[in-house]
Amino acid sequence: MHQTPRDDFCRGVWYFIGYMERILIGKLGEHVGETVSISGWVDVRRDQGKMVFFDFRDRSGKVQGVVLPASPAIEVAKDIRNEYAVRVEGVVNKRPEKNVQADRQNGDIELEVTAIEVLAKAEPLPFDMSVSGFNLDLTAQLDHRALVLRHPRLQAIFKVQNVIIDSFREYLKSQDFFEFQAPAITPAVAEGGAEVFEVNYFDKKAYLSQSPQLYKQIVMTAFERVFSVNKIFRAEPSATTRHLTEVVSLDAELAFIDSWKDVRDVSEETVRYILKEIEKRCATELSLLGTKLPVMIEKTPTLSLTEAQEKIFAKNGRDVRGEKDLNPEDERELCAIIKEETGSDFVYVYGYPTRKKPFYVYPNPENPEFNEGMDLLCRGVEWLSGGRRINNYDQLMTHVKEWGMDPEKISMFLEAFKYGVPPEGGFAFGAERMTMQILELKNVREASMFPRDMNRIDQLLTGHPSETPEK
Amino acid sequence: MHQTPRDDFCRGVWYFIGYMERILIGKLGEHVGETVSISGWVDVRRDQGKMVFFDFRDRSGKVQGVVLPASPAIEVAKDIRNEYAVRVEGVVNKRPEKNVQADRQNGDIELEVTAIEVLAKAEPLPFDMSVSGFNLDLTAQLDHRALVLRHPRLQAIFKVQNVIIDSFREYLKSQDFFEFQAPAITPAVAEGGAEVFEVNYFDKKAYLSQSPQLYKQIVMTAFERVFSVNKIFRAEPSATTRHLTEVVSLDAELAFIDSWKDVRDVSEETVRYILKEIEKRCATELSLLGTKLPVMIEKTPTLSLTEAQEKIFAKNGRDVRGEKDLNPEDERELCAIIKEETGSDFVYVYGYPTRKKPFYVYPNPENPEFNEGMDLLCRGVEWLSGGRRINNYDQLMTHVKEWGMDPEKISMFLEAFKYGVPPEGGFAFGAERMTMQILELKNVREASMFPRDMNRIDQLLTGHPSETPEK
Repeated sequence: MHQTPRDDFCRGVWYFIGYMERILIGKLGEHVGETVSISGWVDVRRDQGKMVFFDFRDRSGKVQGVVLPASPAIEVAKDIRNEYAVRVEGVVNKRPEKNVQADRQNGDIELEVTAIEVLAKAEPLPFDMSVSGFNLDLTAQLDHRALVLRHPRLQAIFKVQNVIIDSFREYLKSQDFFEFQAPAITPAVAEGGAEVFEVNYFDKKAYLSQSPQLYKQIVMTAFERVFSVNKIFRAEPSATTRHLTEVVSLDAELAFIDSWKDVRDVSEETVRYILKEIEKRCATELSLLGTKLPVMIEKTPTLSLTEAQEKIFAKNGRDVRGEKDLNPEDERELCAIIKEETGSDFVYVYGYPTRKKPFYVYPNPENPEFNEGMDLLCRGVEWLSGGRRINNYDQLMTHVKEWGMDPEKISMFLEAFKYGVPPEGGFAFGAERMTMQILELKNVREASMFPRDMNRIDQLLTGHPSETPEK
Repeated sequence: MHQTPRDDFCRGVWYFIGYMERILIGKLGEHVGETVSISGWVDVRRDQGKMVFFDFRDRSGKVQGVVLPASPAIEVAKDIRNEYAVRVEGVVNKRPEKNVQADRQNGDIELEVTAIEVLAKAEPLPFDMSVSGFNLDLTAQLDHRALVLRHPRLQAIFKVQNVIIDSFREYLKSQDFFEFQAPAITPAVAEGGAEVFEVNYFDKKAYLSQSPQLYKQIVMTAFERVFSVNKIFRAEPSATTRHLTEVVSLDAELAFIDSWKDVRDVSEETVRYILKEIEKRCATELSLLGTKLPVMIEKTPTLSLTEAQEKIFAKNGRDVRGEKDLNPEDERELCAIIKEETGSDFVYVYGYPTRKKPFYVYPNPENPEFNEGMDLLCRGVEWLSGGRRINNYDQLMTHVKEWGMDPEKISMFLEAFKYGVPPEGGFAFGAERMTMQILELKNVREASMFPRDMNRIDQLLTGHPSETPEK
């Protein structure tokens, strides 16, 4: 930043004669013995006799500062509370050996404060924001979202979420996948409309996208391998710990596969890369959140639905053979059995009843009652879904009719398949749910910065004035 | 891909005994003299006597193949048309010197085809898809979006768009900015509701976000430097060449600035990085699209609105002094003058009338009638907007009241500013418009894969069945 006089009318109660260049707190260890200037927030204030101690915080971390009774800053320091935004000048001192806190960032140094400029005051905090004292329930956290986002626990969650999304992107780009922007507004409800949001679109109706599925297949026919990171919307009238109305969907699709197993392989390596990157880049966050990454072995076990049901029967004597899907209890038992047998926390299940799944899923040619869709399970729940799709135009049209759909509503999608679409497939998962599952959070709302559900959009919706829109 | 027998019932008319590993067309130059297998689409078919020539295309590029009259593939080749998806086996031959096309990818080799498997047939194309013969107007392009996305001109546009978005992300991450997901569904219309889409949200009303502005300011108060790449929605009832109802907004916000000039500097370096990366990674695309990047000099000229108006008057004698904003003619003239004076295609203009801009823009403390908002102009139009924001809670509340807003509707935003928000600012631009401007496209619809406007969502909306939603 420039050392020019400031054109700032709320510059606080104290004024420097000229500005030193700001040093990030995370870099202070390189400036021992020097006078420096930092900017940040007061994380904690502690009084000890006539001295005042502060932990200062910026985007790079924290450092302890001390204002001695003889410091020119002592008068200003007396009024400063937690979360004040400040500019601080001081000398970086080595701490005496006995005061070194080896396990903390900057635990071997201390800033001896010579000047403080208040950039912005803060009201007294409405609750304890310290790492150990923070115990707000989720509702209260959502009521004070702006303030709570400053807490290290929440910052750790969204740091991990960023690594999930970044790694998804990085891995697929390394495999020649082309990113595209999937639309949010769609013209019609392709696959049944029970859980779709309707938009008043000028004098017409439009709908919020429930999935970029058809768009990613279209773009795949042009770019061969594609992915998208885009919002999807589900009007599920349920307030469970696993449902949001708006989520970030991570979607991939690839052509020229030999079988659905190629899709499985790419999805497996994508998840493996994500886990590896989290391990590499988020050690501090995992430790703060007290969680351990699941184990992915060299080749994740893969079972058909039928084989999975047989395994549950053989092991536990519970007979779910012939059921159309795995229920939550089946998923938990299957994951436990696979973990015990192989050490893997992950297991793929494929081959679901064709008619229970969307029209575009590819039926097994040797047994068309079952399809080549797949799910990746881990720790008892589904993490990712995908499979091979129908690529032959005539077969697709047969399904469109059998599923009772209006081909006119998906004409752009269908047109793509008139012009030579090779065998293809893809997979998808939600960023929030993946974050929740990797970090073993109890509620998916913890994994969304601004979670939306049927009862809340930032504020609770009950009696909310948004029913009478302003003009 | 695995060399396992295929479980594919539509495997085409010809069958290999075992599969060779697929080689990407872009790598064929490394396999001269070898027998290889490629997969891709038939880009062009040409018959020459009893020989058949094909250009094959995959995600990595194109190569010419020849089927000699004695080839076992000659019978299959006779039926193959453009856009068939095929697997091809053949020998990579060096071309004789006189047939080398040095300016084309793989112009020095040719694939002598020994086998072709049709993976999927294509209907005859409804129009000429060749590079030189393609001349569909935009409406026809949008009517056949799925097919047209295969054209190199369109692929070039979206390749450049990806580099714009990727570079924005890369540069800001290198400067410690934290990415966050801005919501699309919002509870209320903060800044006037004329151009907002209403969503039927269970039994309530919600709105599609017109800007992540308030959210990025909230997240900035927690993470200090933030950015987002997210959809925004504008219900503008106009069908101009510059308006879409759904666009990708690239947004950034940073705290601890000394003045709005720090925001200008970060935005300038972001645009500089984007241009540099396009130059580095998109030479082929720029050449195909016949466009040149604008010139950004070492320090982009920066004028206040008043200075810009004076300059136009002094140079051209046209008196717009005292006007509240630059009109399109002013913008064109200013850019021309700056280009002539400095060689720069870019110019920043700052200091607009405070009351003509949103409530959160910071007024100049020495002259509060004007604010510290800014625009970056280039080639006669606005490319990017931003500026310093009000960070003081009391000042913000004063503006909220003066602007006639309901504080209850932005209570989460306002809460953030109760707790020590330092001087801050940010900027934003739209991915589609930036793509259009960099590539000098005539219509912003060309820069959106699936453009939405008041008349079209994929299909034209006139008489569209989406008016009667299915249940």
